[in-house]
Amino acid sequence: MGIYGKTSDNVSMPYQFAARTRKTPRSFIREILKVTERPEIISFAGGLPDPALIAVKEIAEAARLVFESEGAAALQYATTEGYAPLREFVAGRYRRRLGLDASPDEILITSGSQQSLDLIGKVFIDAGEAVAIERPGYLGAIQAFSLYEPTFCPVPLGEDGPDTGALADLLQEKKIRLFYGVPNSQNPSGITWSEKKRREVAALLREAGAVFVEDDAYGELRFSGDPMTPVKKHLPEGTIMTGSFSKIAAPGMRLGWIYAEKEVIDLLTVAKQATDLHTPILTQRILARYLADNDIDAPIRRICETYRRRCDLMGGLIDDLFPEEVTHTRPDGGMFIWATLPAGISSLDLFERGLAENVAVLPGIPFYTDGGGTDTLRLNFSNATDERIEEGIRRLARVLRTYA
Amino acid sequence: MGIYGKTSDNVSMPYQFAARTRKTPRSFIREILKVTERPEIISFAGGLPDPALIAVKEIAEAARLVFESEGAAALQYATTEGYAPLREFVAGRYRRRLGLDASPDEILITSGSQQSLDLIGKVFIDAGEAVAIERPGYLGAIQAFSLYEPTFCPVPLGEDGPDTGALADLLQEKKIRLFYGVPNSQNPSGITWSEKKRREVAALLREAGAVFVEDDAYGELRFSGDPMTPVKKHLPEGTIMTGSFSKIAAPGMRLGWIYAEKEVIDLLTVAKQATDLHTPILTQRILARYLADNDIDAPIRRICETYRRRCDLMGGLIDDLFPEEVTHTRPDGGMFIWATLPAGISSLDLFERGLAENVAVLPGIPFYTDGGGTDTLRLNFSNATDERIEEGIRRLARVLRTYA
Repeated sequence: MGIYGKTSDNVSMPYQFAARTRKTPRSFIREILKVTERPEIISFAGGLPDPALIAVKEIAEAARLVFESEGAAALQYATTEGYAPLREFVAGRYRRRLGLDASPDEILITSGSQQSLDLIGKVFIDAGEAVAIERPGYLGAIQAFSLYEPTFCPVPLGEDGPDTGALADLLQEKKIRLFYGVPNSQNPSGITWSEKKRREVAALLREAGAVFVEDDAYGELRFSGDPMTPVKKHLPEGTIMTGSFSKIAAPGMRLGWIYAEKEVIDLLTVAKQATDLHTPILTQRILARYLADNDIDAPIRRICETYRRRCDLMGGLIDDLFPEEVTHTRPDGGMFIWATLPAGISSLDLFERGLAENVAVLPGIPFYTDGGGTDTLRLNFSNATDERIEEGIRRLARVLRTYA
Repeated sequence: MGIYGKTSDNVSMPYQFAARTRKTPRSFIREILKVTERPEIISFAGGLPDPALIAVKEIAEAARLVFESEGAAALQYATTEGYAPLREFVAGRYRRRLGLDASPDEILITSGSQQSLDLIGKVFIDAGEAVAIERPGYLGAIQAFSLYEPTFCPVPLGEDGPDTGALADLLQEKKIRLFYGVPNSQNPSGITWSEKKRREVAALLREAGAVFVEDDAYGELRFSGDPMTPVKKHLPEGTIMTGSFSKIAAPGMRLGWIYAEKEVIDLLTVAKQATDLHTPILTQRILARYLADNDIDAPIRRICETYRRRCDLMGGLIDDLFPEEVTHTRPDGGMFIWATLPAGISSLDLFERGLAENVAVLPGIPFYTDGGGTDTLRLNFSNATDERIEEGIRRLARVLRTYA
């Protein structure tokens, strides 16, 4: 299965496409998800939140109130920066939850995290520019940035964060413009950077004059304990944070944000205006009303408790049922476990054999910008019930025994 | 007032920005709209539909039904291509209204027309590539495409469409990849291409192997008579159409589409996934429900009647009150009249003097990719009542007399 997209070869004249279209990884996940959509398949391949944990009733009520009292404004054009009360909510939560000195004019509301990455690519990446990324790295960022044709420089990710020796060498060797990372419960690995790694990375990037893009999609999905210190706190001038309401409220509204110094937000805003004018004001007002009328911490607690239980369940079953040589991460948050197969077993082959048993995994290959990773898997635990996790892991264990 | 954006000069290290950020026209309209937001100002500078013509009650009812019967699905992740019933609606309407042979898999739902332009830029424009555009041309397209660093090649726009002699010369001289135009009630000029020009442009582009990007944002806002023939009908293989629900339903939902051959849609879909994953499924489902339960032709008729009356009123007042040397277009649809000032009067100066009298116009300068146009103005007639149009044009007439 090739992961690179169609080129103009498939299309008749007169269409001639930009060179960047040949450099974009095709939607690997999308292709796989299509295959795994059949209801009889237990899929750990996707990355969906559990729809039962979405506050449908409360959001419906917020929508009713918005239409009742501000309907015309909610359906008219609006400003590119985003709805002021939502920007204030995000800034306020950064101040209270993480002790960051955020103000609303440092927040740009975006149409979800993926757009945040696209805008950052647009504003920061020239073709050929060196961009560092964790190895394995988040596929969505690889896809978004690829359209701006950078040279990816992978930094190996260990159990407690990036290999800072390798990062130091890389910063010596090359002029790195950006380092993109997911310090909390990373996608795909589930790894959380230690406090020590955060300080080290901040110091290295400061010295090199490189920017950190801190994707914090999963920071709120920490299973227990206090939040980790954001790298932004160690490197306030030089860190651009991204965040999302998809995991804590609802993905179908496509609402996220970028938090950066005002001068950077200004440039991102100009880029956003050229990209989609503004994020729908209807969804922004509904979400803002929902957040004003409800205590978001309650559903976040429910989400964290549920995902922690499922993560523990899945990890325990892997320990009990998979061959001993299979290793896996033990996430303290997020939605994914990352597993490494015994030598000689290909995750693509496992994917195929799993499908025959009606269970789907996500091969780790597309998370590597430099090849490799053919023995790795991402397993999502947020979108299946305990029963389906148990049955799915049993099926996978059966499939793995066919390699013996 | 400079129209080009901030560069990295304004921002402290460590930020280094992509070269394209220096080529983006800053939001000229945005800057001007900020100035003209004061309620005492009668503004013809913007481009908003009349909020009184938005079907708030009906859309609110559609939202209620969506939350009631499909709330969880409306808040979950969805497919990049867009919500199937909405794609079917768009294709069906093309078939019935314009006799185009459209099918749903040739429709990509986008987050508004501006995103359609961004995605087309992403997929088609390499840096330095020659892109033809009407002169004056739509500012939103100039902004979107600029981020992909093309060389713009302006084609003069006459009373009945582009100068096809100039287009023929241009196609001889240069390898043009795309020609972007707005054949119906163009923004900014209000000009509609004649049937003859449509056929000529299609023939020229077919011969040159160039693609036409047919922005049809205003086709439904035709004041009377049958719809004009889309260029797509003359050049089915080689025309990419874009459309929008902003003018016929509500801009605040940010919903538009691209209509092109399936192979092109496939590439645009890969680009869209990297750009924002998908358009909010919540707004898509609300709109689809609204369209299923209501006859969209009725509000469109109301919109057309209202805008026609305002256009006639504004045009008549200009004829009666402005100096004879002021010329203007007589649009048969859309939202804008385009005026040309007597020799020696700068539209920027008129803008400033107008503000002092609490009336705002939009100087035509940013619609020119090659400079010039300093004596042109865009006047919006969709977003002011008859009374305010009358009072605003009277104020402008007073301002124009100060040049005598």
